[in-house]
Amino acid sequence: MFSSKTNQFDLVIHNGYVVTASDILPPSVYIGLKDGVIDQISARPLTGKRVIDAEGGYVMPGGVDSHVHLSQKNTPAGDTIESGTRSATPGGTTTVIPFAVQASKDDFDVVSVVEDYHKVADGQAYCDYGFHLIVSNPNEEMLSEQLPQLVEKEGITSVKVYTTYPRYKLSDEQLLDILLSNRKMGVTTMIHAENSDIIDFIGKKLEEKKMIDPYYHSVSRPLVAEDEATYRVISLSKMIDVPILIVHMSSETALSTVREAQTSLVPIFAETCPQYLFLTADYLKHDCHHHVHKNDSFQGAKYICSPPLRQTVKELEGVWKAIQNGTVTVFSSDHAPTVYDHPLGKKAGLVNGVPHYKKVPNGLPGIETRMPLLFCKGVESGRITPQKFVELCCSNPAKMYGLGDRKGSISVGMDADLVIWYPKGKLQPFSLDNSMLHHGIDYSPFEGMEFSNWPRYTILRGNVVWDRDNGGLIASKGVGKYLKRGKSSLGGPIKELDEILA
Amino acid sequence: MFSSKTNQFDLVIHNGYVVTASDILPPSVYIGLKDGVIDQISARPLTGKRVIDAEGGYVMPGGVDSHVHLSQKNTPAGDTIESGTRSATPGGTTTVIPFAVQASKDDFDVVSVVEDYHKVADGQAYCDYGFHLIVSNPNEEMLSEQLPQLVEKEGITSVKVYTTYPRYKLSDEQLLDILLSNRKMGVTTMIHAENSDIIDFIGKKLEEKKMIDPYYHSVSRPLVAEDEATYRVISLSKMIDVPILIVHMSSETALSTVREAQTSLVPIFAETCPQYLFLTADYLKHDCHHHVHKNDSFQGAKYICSPPLRQTVKELEGVWKAIQNGTVTVFSSDHAPTVYDHPLGKKAGLVNGVPHYKKVPNGLPGIETRMPLLFCKGVESGRITPQKFVELCCSNPAKMYGLGDRKGSISVGMDADLVIWYPKGKLQPFSLDNSMLHHGIDYSPFEGMEFSNWPRYTILRGNVVWDRDNGGLIASKGVGKYLKRGKSSLGGPIKELDEILA
Amino acid sequence: MFSSKTNQFDLVIHNGYVVTASDILPPSVYIGLKDGVIDQISARPLTGKRVIDAEGGYVMPGGVDSHVHLSQKNTPAGDTIESGTRSATPGGTTTVIPFAVQASKDDFDVVSVVEDYHKVADGQAYCDYGFHLIVSNPNEEMLSEQLPQLVEKEGITSVKVYTTYPRYKLSDEQLLDILLSNRKMGVTTMIHAENSDIIDFIGKKLEEKKMIDPYYHSVSRPLVAEDEATYRVISLSKMIDVPILIVHMSSETALSTVREAQTSLVPIFAETCPQYLFLTADYLKHDCHHHVHKNDSFQGAKYICSPPLRQTVKELEGVWKAIQNGTVTVFSSDHAPTVYDHPLGKKAGLVNGVPHYKKVPNGLPGIETRMPLLFCKGVESGRITPQKFVELCCSNPAKMYGLGDRKGSISVGMDADLVIWYPKGKLQPFSLDNSMLHHGIDYSPFEGMEFSNWPRYTILRGNVVWDRDNGGLIASKGVGKYLKRGKSSLGGPIKELDEILA
Amino acid sequence: MFSSKTNQFDLVIHNGYVVTASDILPPSVYIGLKDGVIDQISARPLTGKRVIDAEGGYVMPGGVDSHVHLSQKNTPAGDTIESGTRSATPGGTTTVIPFAVQASKDDFDVVSVVEDYHKVADGQAYCDYGFHLIVSNPNEEMLSEQLPQLVEKEGITSVKVYTTYPRYKLSDEQLLDILLSNRKMGVTTMIHAENSDIIDFIGKKLEEKKMIDPYYHSVSRPLVAEDEATYRVISLSKMIDVPILIVHMSSETALSTVREAQTSLVPIFAETCPQYLFLTADYLKHDCHHHVHKNDSFQGAKYICSPPLRQTVKELEGVWKAIQNGTVTVFSSDHAPTVYDHPLGKKAGLVNGVPHYKKVPNGLPGIETRMPLLFCKGVESGRITPQKFVELCCSNPAKMYGLGDRKGSISVGMDADLVIWYPKGKLQPFSLDNSMLHHGIDYSPFEGMEFSNWPRYTILRGNVVWDRDNGGLIASKGVGKYLKRGKSSLGGPIKELDEILA
Ligand SMILES: [Zn+2]
Ligand SMILES: [Zn+2]
Ligand SMILES: [Zn+2]
Ligand SMILES: [Zn+2]
Ligand SMILES: [Zn+2]
Ligand SMILES: [Zn+2]
Ligand SMILES: [Zn+2]
Ligand SMILES: [Zn+2]
Repeated sequence: MFSSKTNQFDLVIHNGYVVTASDILPPSVYIGLKDGVIDQISARPLTGKRVIDAEGGYVMPGGVDSHVHLSQKNTPAGDTIESGTRSATPGGTTTVIPFAVQASKDDFDVVSVVEDYHKVADGQAYCDYGFHLIVSNPNEEMLSEQLPQLVEKEGITSVKVYTTYPRYKLSDEQLLDILLSNRKMGVTTMIHAENSDIIDFIGKKLEEKKMIDPYYHSVSRPLVAEDEATYRVISLSKMIDVPILIVHMSSETALSTVREAQTSLVPIFAETCPQYLFLTADYLKHDCHHHVHKNDSFQGAKYICSPPLRQTVKELEGVWKAIQNGTVTVFSSDHAPTVYDHPLGKKAGLVNGVPHYKKVPNGLPGIETRMPLLFCKGVESGRITPQKFVELCCSNPAKMYGLGDRKGSISVGMDADLVIWYPKGKLQPFSLDNSMLHHGIDYSPFEGMEFSNWPRYTILRGNVVWDRDNGGLIASKGVGKYLKRGKSSLGGPIKELDEILA
Repeated sequence: MFSSKTNQFDLVIHNGYVVTASDILPPSVYIGLKDGVIDQISARPLTGKRVIDAEGGYVMPGGVDSHVHLSQKNTPAGDTIESGTRSATPGGTTTVIPFAVQASKDDFDVVSVVEDYHKVADGQAYCDYGFHLIVSNPNEEMLSEQLPQLVEKEGITSVKVYTTYPRYKLSDEQLLDILLSNRKMGVTTMIHAENSDIIDFIGKKLEEKKMIDPYYHSVSRPLVAEDEATYRVISLSKMIDVPILIVHMSSETALSTVREAQTSLVPIFAETCPQYLFLTADYLKHDCHHHVHKNDSFQGAKYICSPPLRQTVKELEGVWKAIQNGTVTVFSSDHAPTVYDHPLGKKAGLVNGVPHYKKVPNGLPGIETRMPLLFCKGVESGRITPQKFVELCCSNPAKMYGLGDRKGSISVGMDADLVIWYPKGKLQPFSLDNSMLHHGIDYSPFEGMEFSNWPRYTILRGNVVWDRDNGGLIASKGVGKYLKRGKSSLGGPIKELDEILA
Repeated sequence: MFSSKTNQFDLVIHNGYVVTASDILPPSVYIGLKDGVIDQISARPLTGKRVIDAEGGYVMPGGVDSHVHLSQKNTPAGDTIESGTRSATPGGTTTVIPFAVQASKDDFDVVSVVEDYHKVADGQAYCDYGFHLIVSNPNEEMLSEQLPQLVEKEGITSVKVYTTYPRYKLSDEQLLDILLSNRKMGVTTMIHAENSDIIDFIGKKLEEKKMIDPYYHSVSRPLVAEDEATYRVISLSKMIDVPILIVHMSSETALSTVREAQTSLVPIFAETCPQYLFLTADYLKHDCHHHVHKNDSFQGAKYICSPPLRQTVKELEGVWKAIQNGTVTVFSSDHAPTVYDHPLGKKAGLVNGVPHYKKVPNGLPGIETRMPLLFCKGVESGRITPQKFVELCCSNPAKMYGLGDRKGSISVGMDADLVIWYPKGKLQPFSLDNSMLHHGIDYSPFEGMEFSNWPRYTILRGNVVWDRDNGGLIASKGVGKYLKRGKSSLGGPIKELDEILA
Repeated sequence: MFSSKTNQFDLVIHNGYVVTASDILPPSVYIGLKDGVIDQISARPLTGKRVIDAEGGYVMPGGVDSHVHLSQKNTPAGDTIESGTRSATPGGTTTVIPFAVQASKDDFDVVSVVEDYHKVADGQAYCDYGFHLIVSNPNEEMLSEQLPQLVEKEGITSVKVYTTYPRYKLSDEQLLDILLSNRKMGVTTMIHAENSDIIDFIGKKLEEKKMIDPYYHSVSRPLVAEDEATYRVISLSKMIDVPILIVHMSSETALSTVREAQTSLVPIFAETCPQYLFLTADYLKHDCHHHVHKNDSFQGAKYICSPPLRQTVKELEGVWKAIQNGTVTVFSSDHAPTVYDHPLGKKAGLVNGVPHYKKVPNGLPGIETRMPLLFCKGVESGRITPQKFVELCCSNPAKMYGLGDRKGSISVGMDADLVIWYPKGKLQPFSLDNSMLHHGIDYSPFEGMEFSNWPRYTILRGNVVWDRDNGGLIASKGVGKYLKRGKSSLGGPIKELDEILA
């Protein structure tokens, strides 16, 4: 279409079904990428320095994984920004948002906390990234001076808070303080909602009865802990009339509570993760029938995460239903792994050969498997449409966290982040082995599952960074850039702030 | 029917509609009382030393007011056992259950707490009474040694706990501890459910804005505080599978949450009180249009109670609905008054002439008006049946607190506690004036309301103690006896206790 | 207590736990019966011509089975008034309410319909009885002239209508006509609620596919047919603001819809029956594993009733839940049997040896087993209290149908109808065999079930009519009397009738 | 961008916010139209024969009004294809789907019905159009032979059925027949859900009481009629597991029932219309305070439509809520007008000067006002996002009815149907007058309402057909083309068809 070489696109994609959160364009469409952005979409052929024929596969926006834990100081055997983002693009993810952590209540200066994380991340990333801030001490100074500065200068427009874990747990009054402050600043609040006291109470009983092997982790954090905390944080959000996103939801009842709030226009958003769709607590058992534990009865520890894997397939179905009926807003990995065979990793839970679930670091790896799992078992199985997949994995996380103008959609002017899947039937189904993955972790909880598709190409700002059949991961460290984010374009309070709170 | 004088009954009642929680017997029935109990009910005439002709009025069981605060040390200007019970029988109540209070977290010995309350009460009561125990520090020793002793020796089979008030507030973990302990002992748990942090949060905002006159009390404890805490304590009860009674419920949403739990067979019981059926927060305003404040703009303080009076008639209707559809189990007064014009009473909230709602003691008087209000505006208005009235005011509170074998019903063998109402049309409707009441308080929140009926006679263990038209209160101090109570006959866990909690 | 022989009671019962819908009196109480009524209840001994020592068993009101089909012309091989009531008192039931049936749309004169049923019943009954009227043609004349006459002269204060069966089915408009008329007359409406079109639609499909053996009866009337019709008739009731009782409910969803209506104070009452608590559709299969079909693959036909037995134990649990949480008002048998081995009985469904479910007469026997089943598997198992049992089996059906002043409670002045159960452990558990029953039917669907208790004595208006250990059924035909009934004392519209409907 | 004149676009749009159902592109984007389709979207300038500068206004897809009644034989004083479509593009609508009507049960041949409608429509339309088929007699032949032919040859992939109106009303069994047939063919079913019997019943009462002026139309079709029928048709849909769209929903309760079905993944879609968001039944009153009735007390007849306008603003808010929370799928006009001052129009309801609501033709005009109303009072007021507006007015109706590949989105390759709004503040707010509209009707129910925006340009397949400031409606009759439609891309059964129904 261009008259001269200089007008050529850097890269042209054609012959694929182009999917956005609302539409599917037919393979006759051409996408022209230039200078890192989606420059043109055209009904007529475009020419480019390089042309990729999608051969009838889906062409989707690059994934946004808005909940990952990388290079956190409190996870010495976890993934770093480098190793974690290395596994992003091979799984179709082009943007991640890890956390900068106010790791202790005495960490008063969150501006320098963020600075530290910048230092750690600089030049390390294989995909684009931003930072959320985990707040464990929302004091007056932080809320009124430091946070506004981070919003303004760093584009950190989201914070995560917890109702559990001694180190992070906020009281309801602290939650109200930060929710009100966030409403005023337009900052999005992510909440980990589990009732801490319930967990402590059961924990003591289990301890007394010496029920402490990895499986009891799942018993110690029952559904009711999530259900209660979910109702509670929704109550708080409703009081302030401020949007919140409840992370990693795993309970059908809690998701119903979210649904009821959404029905009443309370601005509640929900996130879930692959582990709550695909894995039950059986995996935590030392004699799990799902797979041979290779003579290692401690391997259940690999499946310890919080909220825990739930007991029944019926519960997994409840989470699926919440995806299908629209309750769930965002599908993330909650990638929060530690190496299994490492004294500070999962094996920390083995003290003199005796397993204790409380000593096992929580969390699973999952950046790389997130999108392939939902694609194969959601889209290809017919449970969800390709558009819904894009909405959950790409568009909504981008919009939720102030990246809706750049990421998460195949729209002209946006960053040229794309993932191209194999056309149906092209790829021989295979069973996942950890050696296929690019993270720094020695296992995947999804090993042994069968995959019928996988990202064939991943393109980051116009560059092919993953070409599965020709070179695999072909980007180098440092290609990923830091993202200053704007304000969320999902939700947002409409009513005027109550006079008393103003 | 009796052959000789010696066989005569002490008292015979006839010609009234005899009401139990399930039936209404016709006026042709005779009730023969002897030695303090209901000795015979007969279809044929009985003879007695004294005979009362009910003239076609309702004959009902004496009322059981299972939530009253008397002689509490922390309420120096409140009602005593003497002055409080004095106002019981004129209002149709023959049994009250006030609280023995573990008044501070350092009050370690609850056995001696109860002893002290016994000393205060001995010989003072005008009606029968028991004690609940308010627990503010459920430590191991108390739960495992003192409480069992109180159950065994004193028949104290119910405890009250709070989710609010600095002095009483228990954490969720403490609530779980006491719920589990109570389940094992068969003790009933009453819970005051309001989210403390929400109240503190709003309180600070109001303070900052100098919104502190009495009306702001109602703003400071919003519906959401009750709704949240209700969901939470139901979650905890469900975990332990133990019955709880949520006291003084005032929110339609919270009552719906109870209803849903009841539907699912979670053993939740609800209590409400007259103030939540008849009064809105308008009464708290200094320029309340309901009544002339007699040149005293501080009189809104008279209406300060917790949970507070709610804002709208629609909310009152929600509570009525919960009475009518069966959600509410018990109707009590929550009589917790203080004298208005007293430096330690309501006037404590006027500091140098400046009103501050936080300094006003919480609570209203209501023992004497409880039953007349519900009778006139519930039964006579056609909202509820006479049987439902008896269930709510008499039978259920007796059963709930282990008195179902003695109190709360007109059944042979039970204590001869009766109340006889005027036949319809016999009593000239009148407007209530505090001078008509027998408590020690200088006002009633229900003054000015019109009553179309009132207890005509009240009989306590066979003795007429209140004869409205002939002498009024004719019993003397000390006639009331202490009641050692058995275990609740309502609810009770059915499922076996989970192995982990056993 | 009586001074002379002439003052002696006809019969005295003592030493049993006396149960009403609200209370349990201790064994120390004496009940004195005289002239057919409960004459006295006394805390002190009474003397009588005969004295029964209940030995610590429960003493309960005689049962009221308010839904039975006897001597209906359309059931030539069914039970008659004689054979049906013969099996009432051995099962603890002292009152039944069968139907007088407007059997065809051309049956214009319902007054003479009732006369005919009187003729058939006169002198035949072993227990007291009334009549409901089944209305299949609610024309103007019937509603305005005949029905008022039946209410007035015959005490027929309840009608049953259907949303299904070609012969009986009324349109929604006809239902509205009769509901409005019933509201104005204070007549109670019973509704059989299944969507007729759904059943016809599936019936055709099954016919086409030759899926016609007895099991397909249960497929042909799916839950959705009951769920839909339940919502519909509740809508109609709500419009007119008139109480209805939905008969023989078998669906958890439909019962939830009733619960929601009750929550909103729509006056809906629900009935269920033993078959929906104890039997699944497995029994309809020719190769049912529950029992040997004795070389007769057609025996599934014995279990054909409408609504049908449901498919899963989970569904039965849903009905139990509705009993336990208070949704269900009345527990009846829907005794509507036919002889199995009779050309006009169940065997009518075998045409030339080929089974066809549509040709099998619907209905099961159950008068005699109704109360023992719920007593053993409800009360003794701990699912419900003895009071709840009395409410469901005795008090509520009596109140619902205008007999609350005479039947269904142990109250002075009421008919002396009582049932005395064996004290716990006294009776050796046994397996039911049809030979133990007194109906005219050659099988029971509950054969083979184990019973741990059974009515030991049944007393009808002061006479022992069933003494299991001494003579069994000792009453003779004709002892039962016709009951002119008053108006329902449950529910009843409160709001004024809308001007448009007045 | 093109090198030569021949490569120029026919029309280029730039400098507007380009909105799809999921995204908003910034004004820097250029849209190039060529040969009637959206040929390119580009981040860099495009050149065209004509260029429109949107000046910062919204650029949206042309509207799809999927529920309009035009040239129906039974509406002699209604709009024709010509006059109705004439008012489409000035209101932003570029596609309409009127109905071909099987107008009587004796109309056996629906193929020739459609032929007739083609003849009437040919060369008359100002915008593109398809046909739904209204089915009043779903006999076997029609379902098995004619409908498949219409799907195949005519692209008629949707039918509308009714539960009300004597002429159209189908029984539940007929509904099941057509639902099953539609499932097998992939045809979408639209259902008008009001309970016919309820309406007839009230109608008779109103007639008896001479309550017949226009206002009583709204009384005669109460909410419960819609609520009941909604639950019923959802039950039928669930049975067959086939998607349905319930048209013109007006009841909060019915919409909640839809929401619950959607939550459970029953494939139910909902439509609502402007009249249910903006007008209450007050407008039907002869003394309506909303506007001077100009000495004509019959003007309430202008507001007669079915379902009727509802009584309260609260009810309107309920419909708004269903739009905001996602329950509503499609926003259509249900344009079904008749001339007011015409003997076969609304005035047919005046018989000898006496008004009778039953004789007034039902229906309102609304094609032209549909999108401006929702834009001004939904988008500009902040109730909904621009994306939600596009979803409801454009994308969803297109997808629902098999036009998702051509209409309803701004995507490359799709028809170049666009509407450009005024930039905020550019247009002086004005009050609507019927003279501004282009239909053939002598009034609009929305006259007098204030509008702050309006379509500035409407483009149909690349041609500017409406230029509000320069010539207004500049297209000529016949420019609109008939649309053969594909199958719906919303919903669709996932589960395999039950063996019995297969
Ligand atoms: Zn977390
Ligand atoms: Zn996390
Ligand atoms: Zn309290
Ligand atoms: Zn209290
Ligand atoms: Zn029936
Ligand atoms: Zn029946
Ligand atoms: Zn319609
Ligand atoms: Zn229409």
